[in-house]
Amino acid sequence: MSDNDDLKALIRTIPDFPKPGIQFRDITTLLLDPHGFAQAIMRMAATTLGPIDLVAGIEARGFIFAAALARPLNAGVLLIRKDGKLPGATIAEDYALEYGTDRIVMHADALAPGKRVLLVDDLIATGGTARAALRLLRKAGAVVEQAQFLVDLPDLGGADALRADGVTVDSLIAFPGH
Amino acid sequence: MSDNDDLKALIRTIPDFPKPGIQFRDITTLLLDPHGFAQAIMRMAATTLGPIDLVAGIEARGFIFAAALARPLNAGVLLIRKDGKLPGATIAEDYALEYGTDRIVMHADALAPGKRVLLVDDLIATGGTARAALRLLRKAGAVVEQAQFLVDLPDLGGADALRADGVTVDSLIAFPGH
Repeated sequence: MSDNDDLKALIRTIPDFPKPGIQFRDITTLLLDPHGFAQAIMRMAATTLGPIDLVAGIEARGFIFAAALARPLNAGVLLIRKDGKLPGATIAEDYALEYGTDRIVMHADALAPGKRVLLVDDLIATGGTARAALRLLRKAGAVVEQAQFLVDLPDLGGADALRADGVTVDSLIAFPGH
Repeated sequence: MSDNDDLKALIRTIPDFPKPGIQFRDITTLLLDPHGFAQAIMRMAATTLGPIDLVAGIEARGFIFAAALARPLNAGVLLIRKDGKLPGATIAEDYALEYGTDRIVMHADALAPGKRVLLVDDLIATGGTARAALRLLRKAGAVVEQAQFLVDLPDLGGADALRADGVTVDSLIAFPGH
């Protein structure tokens, strides 16, 4: 039994969203709980490996964790967004979807080379977006040693793929057998 | 001279985004600054009128402020999203755009009637989205007495329209003459 079963109990599962056969792990019920959300953030912050300069959050739910972690980690927030959403000059990374590709971007001047960045998102599944975010951050010169997620769906392999890219991956809650 | 000129100096202006003639006030440069972002959150938290249960953030940049304010206000986070993004049953509000309409939604079971909700977003301009969010929250039974924004573009009238809807509106930074 995991230490974070109290938090896992705050996540509800919604069947067949966004399409039939998918069990959607809905974190909004945890966010609504002041104690549960505060505990999630404190436990993520407590798992951070070392001093960091920026927390990079992936649009849109990743923004929630990046913003809440900024204060306890004494870091700034870097936004990794869908294409077309950032007003300044951007750098981009593409990643494969089931059909076609998608693209994420960040401001080209968001960080100086050598900045220590923690990558965060609410959930890791196949890891396509997170791995593209890692490539993007490294292209910008960031030192990324760790990625953190509230939820891992380990059977989809994203966390392992990200580890193979050379980062430590931590999550508070796992839903195996997905 | 405003007390928040130190924060205003962290916001950059990008001309002609997303279209010619628009001066885009880019808050990402403030978010990247650990001290600036922490100060912005503390000053917003210090302006809160009374105890609240939930901070409602409007997708996507509103999530940043809702998440960061949750801890100092001892509140949960409620997500107000674009249509199709929430997995559970939702209630919706439409609002007018320059051409056509757009829709925001929240989970129908996100709050019990009487919950005290603080509405937040990064910026208020014409106020169309914020006013729709206020209607949505009130339809769900929320008590909304205050809305907070990092940036106000007062000449676009959104803050005044929101005040006419019966809420106190506060922002740290104003860009007049827009």
